[in-house]
Amino acid sequence: MGSIRFKNNRLFYLDQTKLPLQELWRECKSLGDGYKAIKNLRIRGAPLIGVFAAYNVFIASKKFSSQKEKFLRQLKEAIDYLKTSRPTAVNLFWALQRLVLVVKKNQKESIFKIKSEILKEAKDIHAEDIDLCRKMAGYGVKLIKKGDRILTHCNTGFLATSGDGTALAVIYKAHRLHKNIRIYADETRPLLQGSRLTAWELDKRKIPSTVICDNMAASLMQERQIDKIFLGADRIAANGDTANKIGTYSLAVLAHYHKIPFYVVAPFSTFDLKLKSGKFIPIEKRCADEVRKVLGKVYITPRHMQVKNPAFDITPSKLITAIVSDKGVIYPPFRKNIKRVINRKP
Amino acid sequence: MGSIRFKNNRLFYLDQTKLPLQELWRECKSLGDGYKAIKNLRIRGAPLIGVFAAYNVFIASKKFSSQKEKFLRQLKEAIDYLKTSRPTAVNLFWALQRLVLVVKKNQKESIFKIKSEILKEAKDIHAEDIDLCRKMAGYGVKLIKKGDRILTHCNTGFLATSGDGTALAVIYKAHRLHKNIRIYADETRPLLQGSRLTAWELDKRKIPSTVICDNMAASLMQERQIDKIFLGADRIAANGDTANKIGTYSLAVLAHYHKIPFYVVAPFSTFDLKLKSGKFIPIEKRCADEVRKVLGKVYITPRHMQVKNPAFDITPSKLITAIVSDKGVIYPPFRKNIKRVINRKP
Repeated sequence: MGSIRFKNNRLFYLDQTKLPLQELWRECKSLGDGYKAIKNLRIRGAPLIGVFAAYNVFIASKKFSSQKEKFLRQLKEAIDYLKTSRPTAVNLFWALQRLVLVVKKNQKESIFKIKSEILKEAKDIHAEDIDLCRKMAGYGVKLIKKGDRILTHCNTGFLATSGDGTALAVIYKAHRLHKNIRIYADETRPLLQGSRLTAWELDKRKIPSTVICDNMAASLMQERQIDKIFLGADRIAANGDTANKIGTYSLAVLAHYHKIPFYVVAPFSTFDLKLKSGKFIPIEKRCADEVRKVLGKVYITPRHMQVKNPAFDITPSKLITAIVSDKGVIYPPFRKNIKRVINRKP
Repeated sequence: MGSIRFKNNRLFYLDQTKLPLQELWRECKSLGDGYKAIKNLRIRGAPLIGVFAAYNVFIASKKFSSQKEKFLRQLKEAIDYLKTSRPTAVNLFWALQRLVLVVKKNQKESIFKIKSEILKEAKDIHAEDIDLCRKMAGYGVKLIKKGDRILTHCNTGFLATSGDGTALAVIYKAHRLHKNIRIYADETRPLLQGSRLTAWELDKRKIPSTVICDNMAASLMQERQIDKIFLGADRIAANGDTANKIGTYSLAVLAHYHKIPFYVVAPFSTFDLKLKSGKFIPIEKRCADEVRKVLGKVYITPRHMQVKNPAFDITPSKLITAIVSDKGVIYPPFRKNIKRVINRKP
């Protein structure tokens, strides 16, 4: 499983825009390839784009100058360029920042050495990501009871991370422990990461699951068919306010009204403790045709229709029951407990 | 405007499944034609299917026996058959019931006379529907202030009624009165009546409007970009509980949380005072492929994926600010006031 592979110094990825009907692997051969793959969501998921971007810097560096000063400048430009591919998920910046530090630390070394240190760091980020997923699953699974019916949103599984996922990793672990769960997956318009990707993953893992349109979640809650909500995050501020896929805030309000526990699952790299609250998180606005058309194919509005397309929304922490991190489960008061748990030594 | 035409004793309708990209008029030539048109949502909208079904009985009757007893039996069977086309919207039953009474009253008359009385009743239902729209618009427009930004769901305009609509008629009137409104239209998955039909109508009428995915509504409310919600109904119980397009209940909870007024607009024929509460309203479950595919064309889930597809949900009356009817605006307590207003003599 997993949707990126690094082999013989080459980087391959599963094109997520083609799922669920086609499993197409592509090679990322250049900086531009990688940038476009992230921008166009061929590769996505907050933790995964961090890992992918780190490898991509190594791939790009193969073509850089053999003149040291120019090499370092090209490296810096490549890293800065990749940072502009998507603005909301903080894992991307976090991973690229690790490379900046590696380069800084080795700036006196040979180009060969710098390249190999970049690759080593990318591989470390990759390996750590797999480990973080395992830890989140371990903490999160304790929140799941036998027979729970769990609603999730967007995609947070092995397509969104290098490991088993964030929220879906918890679900996979519960399934492995025979907790007899059922999953409801929001289709997650406009790009349908729920119906295309989460459904595909759940199907591969043979977990009993049902896809619903986003606007059906409230009705299921009203009928008491949802016991818990588990989903991921793209950035979490110091007070616990959480940016995640558009529609997350809607579920949080609905869960609050129906008194359903609402859990966010994210590794420490998703926390951005410099930001005091959610209002400082930038929200990516994507192109109108993602809403006007489905899968880039069928128009579902008049062609020139004005639309909105914010890719994320902000859920205030007061609507969050707990945040499951790789360092443990964080309960309110979040401002105090996030700092305490996230800064905990491993 | 309008999406049905009765001319030279022939019934034509605009195939709503082809909008917004194609304006295709079809003729309804038989009972089966009409049944399928309603069932497959080529013709839809609670008030409109009542009008259409009434005309359809007349069209069907052209081919019935010239032997009186058999004719009456065929008529009854046709009416009973049409009642099974869709279970939730009560206007269908209400219109067909009017024909039952007309037939009963004229059962001693000639076949020719009975047919002409059926046609007269269908035309009356049609004319009344136009008038009801005008009256709802007149009452509802008083609830709209200059500059209001209004969210609506599904389609409730001249494609859903014979006149200007229910909720959209209110919006059209506010626009004619230069109230400087902006409309946000939920796309309304799975069948996209918002992005396909409401957007098409608003575009035709040149009203400033924006289509959003259903899961974006909460985020707009959070940003204080929605002042009011206006939408229609398929059936309203005696206590005000309202069945309407799936996603309505979600909006009602979100509006309640954000303290945004939530208005339902429906004519007296949408009320079903025999039903004490919403829990007695039957909810139509539609086929899985409506969720698995978009517009019958593009698969957005694994092909065999399990899905839910309830066409409607029930909004408890405690979440409704007021119901705008053709007899006036009805405020809580609904159980008392619905009875008083709806039974008011014209």
